Amino acid sequence: MNRDAFAAGERLVSPAYVRQGCEARRSHEHLVRQLLEKGKCPEDGWDESTLELFLHELAVMDSNNFLGNCGVGEREGRVASALVARRHYRLIHGIGRSGDISAVQPKAAGSSLLNKITNSLVLDILKLAGVPTVANCFVVPMATGMSLTLCFLTLRHKRPKAKYIIWPRIDQKSCFKSMITAGFEPVVIENVLEGDELRTDLQAVEARIRELGPDSVLCVHSTTSCFAPRVPDKLEELAVICANYGIPHVVNNAYGVQSSKCMHLIQQGARVGRIDAFVQSLDKNFMVPVGGAIIAGFNDAFIQEISKMYPGRASASPSLDVLITLLTLGSNGYKKLLKERKEMFLYLSSQLKKLAEACSERLLHTPHNPISLAMTLKMLDARHDKAVTQLGSMLFTRQVSGARVVSLGFVQTVSGHIFRGFMSHSNDYPCAYLNAAAAIGMKTQDVDLFIKRLDKCLKTVRKEQSKESDVPAVDNDGKTGNVDIEETTLKLDNVLLDTSS
Amino acid sequence: MNRDAFAAGERLVSPAYVRQGCEARRSHEHLVRQLLEKGKCPEDGWDESTLELFLHELAVMDSNNFLGNCGVGEREGRVASALVARRHYRLIHGIGRSGDISAVQPKAAGSSLLNKITNSLVLDILKLAGVPTVANCFVVPMATGMSLTLCFLTLRHKRPKAKYIIWPRIDQKSCFKSMITAGFEPVVIENVLEGDELRTDLQAVEARIRELGPDSVLCVHSTTSCFAPRVPDKLEELAVICANYGIPHVVNNAYGVQSSKCMHLIQQGARVGRIDAFVQSLDKNFMVPVGGAIIAGFNDAFIQEISKMYPGRASASPSLDVLITLLTLGSNGYKKLLKERKEMFLYLSSQLKKLAEACSERLLHTPHNPISLAMTLKMLDARHDKAVTQLGSMLFTRQVSGARVVSLGFVQTVSGHIFRGFMSHSNDYPCAYLNAAAAIGMKTQDVDLFIKRLDKCLKTVRKEQSKESDVPAVDNDGKTGNVDIEETTLKLDNVLLDTSS
Amino acid sequence: MNRDAFAAGERLVSPAYVRQGCEARRSHEHLVRQLLEKGKCPEDGWDESTLELFLHELAVMDSNNFLGNCGVGEREGRVASALVARRHYRLIHGIGRSGDISAVQPKAAGSSLLNKITNSLVLDILKLAGVPTVANCFVVPMATGMSLTLCFLTLRHKRPKAKYIIWPRIDQKSCFKSMITAGFEPVVIENVLEGDELRTDLQAVEARIRELGPDSVLCVHSTTSCFAPRVPDKLEELAVICANYGIPHVVNNAYGVQSSKCMHLIQQGARVGRIDAFVQSLDKNFMVPVGGAIIAGFNDAFIQEISKMYPGRASASPSLDVLITLLTLGSNGYKKLLKERKEMFLYLSSQLKKLAEACSERLLHTPHNPISLAMTLKMLDARHDKAVTQLGSMLFTRQVSGARVVSLGFVQTVSGHIFRGFMSHSNDYPCAYLNAAAAIGMKTQDVDLFIKRLDKCLKTVRKEQSKESDVPAVDNDGKTGNVDIEETTLKLDNVLLDTSS
Amino acid sequence: MNRDAFAAGERLVSPAYVRQGCEARRSHEHLVRQLLEKGKCPEDGWDESTLELFLHELAVMDSNNFLGNCGVGEREGRVASALVARRHYRLIHGIGRSGDISAVQPKAAGSSLLNKITNSLVLDILKLAGVPTVANCFVVPMATGMSLTLCFLTLRHKRPKAKYIIWPRIDQKSCFKSMITAGFEPVVIENVLEGDELRTDLQAVEARIRELGPDSVLCVHSTTSCFAPRVPDKLEELAVICANYGIPHVVNNAYGVQSSKCMHLIQQGARVGRIDAFVQSLDKNFMVPVGGAIIAGFNDAFIQEISKMYPGRASASPSLDVLITLLTLGSNGYKKLLKERKEMFLYLSSQLKKLAEACSERLLHTPHNPISLAMTLKMLDARHDKAVTQLGSMLFTRQVSGARVVSLGFVQTVSGHIFRGFMSHSNDYPCAYLNAAAAIGMKTQDVDLFIKRLDKCLKTVRKEQSKESDVPAVDNDGKTGNVDIEETTLKLDNVLLDTSS
Repeated sequence: MNRDAFAAGERLVSPAYVRQGCEARRSHEHLVRQLLEKGKCPEDGWDESTLELFLHELAVMDSNNFLGNCGVGEREGRVASALVARRHYRLIHGIGRSGDISAVQPKAAGSSLLNKITNSLVLDILKLAGVPTVANCFVVPMATGMSLTLCFLTLRHKRPKAKYIIWPRIDQKSCFKSMITAGFEPVVIENVLEGDELRTDLQAVEARIRELGPDSVLCVHSTTSCFAPRVPDKLEELAVICANYGIPHVVNNAYGVQSSKCMHLIQQGARVGRIDAFVQSLDKNFMVPVGGAIIAGFNDAFIQEISKMYPGRASASPSLDVLITLLTLGSNGYKKLLKERKEMFLYLSSQLKKLAEACSERLLHTPHNPISLAMTLKMLDARHDKAVTQLGSMLFTRQVSGARVVSLGFVQTVSGHIFRGFMSHSNDYPCAYLNAAAAIGMKTQDVDLFIKRLDKCLKTVRKEQSKESDVPAVDNDGKTGNVDIEETTLKLDNVLLDTSS
Repeated sequence: MNRDAFAAGERLVSPAYVRQGCEARRSHEHLVRQLLEKGKCPEDGWDESTLELFLHELAVMDSNNFLGNCGVGEREGRVASALVARRHYRLIHGIGRSGDISAVQPKAAGSSLLNKITNSLVLDILKLAGVPTVANCFVVPMATGMSLTLCFLTLRHKRPKAKYIIWPRIDQKSCFKSMITAGFEPVVIENVLEGDELRTDLQAVEARIRELGPDSVLCVHSTTSCFAPRVPDKLEELAVICANYGIPHVVNNAYGVQSSKCMHLIQQGARVGRIDAFVQSLDKNFMVPVGGAIIAGFNDAFIQEISKMYPGRASASPSLDVLITLLTLGSNGYKKLLKERKEMFLYLSSQLKKLAEACSERLLHTPHNPISLAMTLKMLDARHDKAVTQLGSMLFTRQVSGARVVSLGFVQTVSGHIFRGFMSHSNDYPCAYLNAAAAIGMKTQDVDLFIKRLDKCLKTVRKEQSKESDVPAVDNDGKTGNVDIEETTLKLDNVLLDTSS
Repeated sequence: MNRDAFAAGERLVSPAYVRQGCEARRSHEHLVRQLLEKGKCPEDGWDESTLELFLHELAVMDSNNFLGNCGVGEREGRVASALVARRHYRLIHGIGRSGDISAVQPKAAGSSLLNKITNSLVLDILKLAGVPTVANCFVVPMATGMSLTLCFLTLRHKRPKAKYIIWPRIDQKSCFKSMITAGFEPVVIENVLEGDELRTDLQAVEARIRELGPDSVLCVHSTTSCFAPRVPDKLEELAVICANYGIPHVVNNAYGVQSSKCMHLIQQGARVGRIDAFVQSLDKNFMVPVGGAIIAGFNDAFIQEISKMYPGRASASPSLDVLITLLTLGSNGYKKLLKERKEMFLYLSSQLKKLAEACSERLLHTPHNPISLAMTLKMLDARHDKAVTQLGSMLFTRQVSGARVVSLGFVQTVSGHIFRGFMSHSNDYPCAYLNAAAAIGMKTQDVDLFIKRLDKCLKTVRKEQSKESDVPAVDNDGKTGNVDIEETTLKLDNVLLDTSS
Repeated sequence: MNRDAFAAGERLVSPAYVRQGCEARRSHEHLVRQLLEKGKCPEDGWDESTLELFLHELAVMDSNNFLGNCGVGEREGRVASALVARRHYRLIHGIGRSGDISAVQPKAAGSSLLNKITNSLVLDILKLAGVPTVANCFVVPMATGMSLTLCFLTLRHKRPKAKYIIWPRIDQKSCFKSMITAGFEPVVIENVLEGDELRTDLQAVEARIRELGPDSVLCVHSTTSCFAPRVPDKLEELAVICANYGIPHVVNNAYGVQSSKCMHLIQQGARVGRIDAFVQSLDKNFMVPVGGAIIAGFNDAFIQEISKMYPGRASASPSLDVLITLLTLGSNGYKKLLKERKEMFLYLSSQLKKLAEACSERLLHTPHNPISLAMTLKMLDARHDKAVTQLGSMLFTRQVSGARVVSLGFVQTVSGHIFRGFMSHSNDYPCAYLNAAAAIGMKTQDVDLFIKRLDKCLKTVRKEQSKESDVPAVDNDGKTGNVDIEETTLKLDNVLLDTSS
């Protein structure tokens, strides 16, 4: 509504009331202006009314929403389904242009603003989360793995002779595949066991670099967030090695933004040595749907080079999700989530420890892993792999999601490469174990239900082991309105589930 | 977004593109301004983007959406559920004030504008639909019947001695109850049979007025839209009688806006005689959910008096529905719907006639009824009432909704008053019949499916009559994705359904 | 999805996973079943996913959503605008039938269920809120005032000779109008001053009943929730008087459900004497949009009689809002809101007391009013009415909503009846004052902002009084993102606002 | 709602009505079952009610919506913003697993079904659109260019020695970049001029293959849809060459699904020769937001290999969009869109021809291009490039989007490669020209407005050329509610716009 509309409104109802409403609107506009001017995440989250007004304003700046537009191109932002148009707030043109995913589209000023603002907000949050000297970043609507691939493809143009990527082993398929897809040969560096922890073998890294020759190495590809008992790589030391040999360094920081420890490692690595890019998942760190990643780095020009490698326009959907989320939370809301996660990690840790001890098992001592925990499954292991798998299956059918049982000696071939002891990040970890993680958004109730159900499953599996009987324990979660999960799901227990990743 | 926000936007993306977007926004604003200035239904319907922007703008003018508001009253527009807030576009304060449903609320400039604009648009549409001299109207979130009650309650204050309401019979409970609830005694005027039609008995009306004395008569309560073979009352003549005797005249125009004939009757009545108010349903005329009515009249002051009789604030929901609908359709869209309805009436009429003749029945000749049709059920009648009822039940279970079978001799007591031949508007209509209507929004497909299913049901009922057998006819509607309605529903056929109104 | 669909799904993805999903769905279904079987508000609120699934399930049971339906009636639930259909979850047919707002509609099993369930849940909540012996209730899509009118109209049929309603004075227009609209003559009983409180004059009530004769009295119309210094009527004593004289008793409990004290009064009144119906607002007690009320009582048959007085189908919108809200909150959530309100009342009370004392004013001692407070404005009063009005205006423009300033000696004519000292519930209350209330949903922030702004406004007004100058005090709310309300709104300060009710 | 819930419902309202509603639900379920069983696009589009019920059913099968779920993994589908959850229908887990974008997720049976069904529907539509023998396809949430890159990266593993990609020139940056990003060297084959058309130089292709050696060639990368006067590549002949030399063949079919001619070329190519994969945009062919592509092919195994190259889980958003769209349209709806596009192409063609002739220009004769047209700009060209650019700028500011002006002699370097005559697909096309295309969803109104505005712009530019004056022509589009675009936008005309792609 413009000045004339308000004047007309004043004639219809009382001028005093319309003016009051008009003044009130200025508060919303003020927030939008601040956002556009500063490009920072507001401290306090926005109301839905401000947020939707902002998205509407962006949308009407895109040509598909021009009332007088006539489109004679091959891509005009026409939408067949009203449901689809509406779920995207009529922002249809995506982000970027054919040459550059960060570029501005003439047809879509609103979507272009959305893209710029989102990247700016995300940069602000990365700084706040522990990497204050990050220089540039952008949201890309691809998985973390595919985003790593894009980084490697960009590096190829700078290092035409390189064929290898040095990679401290982490047993997660997409990490490995990100290198294979980019056309490089991963050089797997086995981890070393320090206490219960699996840590980076720095000597082996350096030895392999020398052996292959620095020029034939595209980059070192290290990892922060990972399942215990593996712990984040020794980033500082790796960064120094990279600096010394003039080798690029790409960090897979998949769900590390939520942990100040992971972020600190990156900041330190960049300070003392070399980190070219670090890549993180949107969904795992910002509680949005799966599908986006952030590529960030300390050299503005290099990050721009990567953004120019994406051929074509891209989906704005992940950007829109993270924008809505950050504006809703505000930086204070996001910080609160980080704080709560840390507390939840301590709580999960103490509860799991108690349960482990009660079962004559042990919580593995992995102080360097700030997110994931592991509890031994020695008692089950004695009876071979079957019981371990059954435990996983039982947890799954009892609606425990994300718990991960790891038996020993599992051999898997990924893209032609044979991994012994797959899933355990090691050829021969000493014992079978179970993983649980405290990720952003976890609630006390998650921990309590998990501990309760795990306890029962362990008891059931052991009883079956001893008696080879099949009678399940009685269960009552006490969760309101919940049909008894135990009874209904037992029939699924013998199904073999592939929950490997 | 204001000037400063746009300036900031220009720095983020290109000034040329932002300015283009900004110009484009003016088109939306222009439509809003025109609406507020002229208060008329736009000819062309609005895009959803303009519509939602407008509703958002209204919402931010209400105090519950002020970012800095603090509420210390007993009614502050707080909403517990986000789903609820959002389905009302955050317009929470309703319409009107304690003294007057058309009054402006200081706390809610946006909702007040919504109320004013809606009433203004609806007035525009009433004019366009055939009553150009209507002076004022307002939307009230009550049923047509309850709205009529409000009119009668208003008249009471002007005619303290009146006890009776003269009412040409129409067999629809809420019409009758509207008078009872208001505390008056309906004086039922039986209709006279002219050909197949049931028409107003003007002599009886006048005789009763004289008999009771004009001062003891609150008003004449006439009806336009009704089920055939009753036809709209002779409004012109009734209006003249009212004028002559100084008696108010209230017209129940329930679903008459959709018919130019009904509207014309009202216009003529007001021209030659007296019509104080006419009341119409929102849902039946504007394709919105049930729950609102329009009270309209030719004397601005009297309509205002009625609006001041509603004690308290009222739901804005029906007003919002009709506002969205009219802005989406535009006056051209609404006119198109009216035109299509007229065509559909002719189509239904011809198809039903064909079917009737093929079954040795007859389409009753009711040329004065522009919406409803009736086909005799003589063949069934011979076997008494049971077969007629069964036909109704069968149609219902075969997903024919709105068809209405009327057997003879049904006696019903409504609020203490005994109606013989209830549902047929007459003590002794010559034959049983079936009603079908062509209402706004009806499609060819509705007619075709109805005729097909009716044909089958009639055949089945007759076969059963002759054989007392129970075998249903095979059916295949050919409607994609539709399970065979016949088979699945036959088991319900013997259920007695109360589909009387 | 039915059994066959799941089987097909199992072939597309893994049977184990589909079965898991299928089992999970049972939890949602279980909640729905419990709701329908018990008709009680669930203790824990539902997830949005369960809620929307439920609403969708209801919708597909209405004939307008039947895929094979053909409609040949005058009201088929067709909707022109997709936006409208969607905001009502495609529940279009409203509630009730022409004869009865609580009746079931053959065409709309889903909407009928919605209606029944909502009334059942609301009854459950009334019990929980302090009236355990309530027998029946129903939601009606009308304002509290209009709902009271409906009660009076129903009573008229039981007491044909009655002309008067005994009404302890409360200065709220719609209460008064509810009687006028129903066609009765209110007999105003002035309140008596007990300390600071204005309380029911029981002697006067009884005297007037005797004077007029019990048969000529339709009912006693009493009030619970009201603005201090008036306090809830002496319901127990009034109920006993009504029982003794055989006079019906209707209680206006507008926003009393939120206060256990108000509810307790009703329960006690019904226990020791006679209460026929009590009426409460939906929006003020359940944090939903304006537009609905609950009519409740202790005699099932009488409440049904009232529901049968509403002529026509009614809007389902208020029922839908309260259903969504109660299912989202659960009874625990609602109880929590009640508890927080009580705490907020104490907080507001203490803060306002402090401020009053700092300004040489006084918080009126009104211990019987559990919701509203009043603080004297003696200092302003000395300078006549203008300053009081200006204070109201200033608070309004500073986005303090709901604060109510009451000057003395204001005379208002409502529907022909002259009220001296209007707004103060008394012909001659000793001093001017300001009202603030602690209503459900109020937050600490509301109180703090209010106290801060009130403090400043008082200082400004006094300074102006002493100097007749016009310089406003500097203000800084410290609210993030809020433009400085003081500066922008001062220009509106001299506008005279009608915030009387 | 399950059996018990319905039974409870029958007790609340009438059994007959609930059963009717229950039967009606079966029709919706029937459609869902058919979809899951057949995996084909339904002929008739679904109602929104069926569609949303289906999406809700899918969502409750995902673990993030399990009521009793406890999540202890690093990725649990938690969503911080209710707005975000709701716009994705609570389908949060994305599609695919770390190893394979087509794989099933144990945690998310619903999302997995969504993925499978979408790919199945899209395959059905590709067949219907003209490639009946297509064997497999999948939706990938990446731009067409990035999807081509993924194809090339997959081929790398099969052809380790290959370094080159044979590419008949098309001046669209992302096509070129798709090869660069994948790390290959594009071998640009200049087009040959046949009449006005630019066509594939088959001799040159074959010559280059021989010259480089087939083993060093990764693939031939051809194009169907393109801007006139370039026309679709000679796919049949290229496919034969590829078959003969054992070279893979990847087709960029960006917006070719909408044209039966493009699709036929692919079908024929595969029949007579070799096509390994063809890639098309989702947004350009299916009227959904930018962001997805379909990778399809004739060899099931190869398409699966490509899907296994995407490392990580991917956004389900583009899949969801196309699923909603196809279910809403039905195959009949999609066919209707294709038919209308063809008609619109003829209309645009005739109108543009008329205009061209009236201006002494010429519509280039490009019969092999079924989507794009080109009209000469000889008159402007005479005065050098400036006028051509100004025309583009003027059209843009007058809200003509997608029109593309091409001047001659423009040199551009893309990723180190120099293109002479960039944008014209040729080093030295004979004249400057303007492009317009008839894409899916275009309306008569688009064509009419375009022709009108183009006409005026041409006149203005010429006038300025002759007089070097600056006075704009008066304009009146006659579009309701549209502010006069001419006046408001002229001030932007001198802005130089980069609308190259």
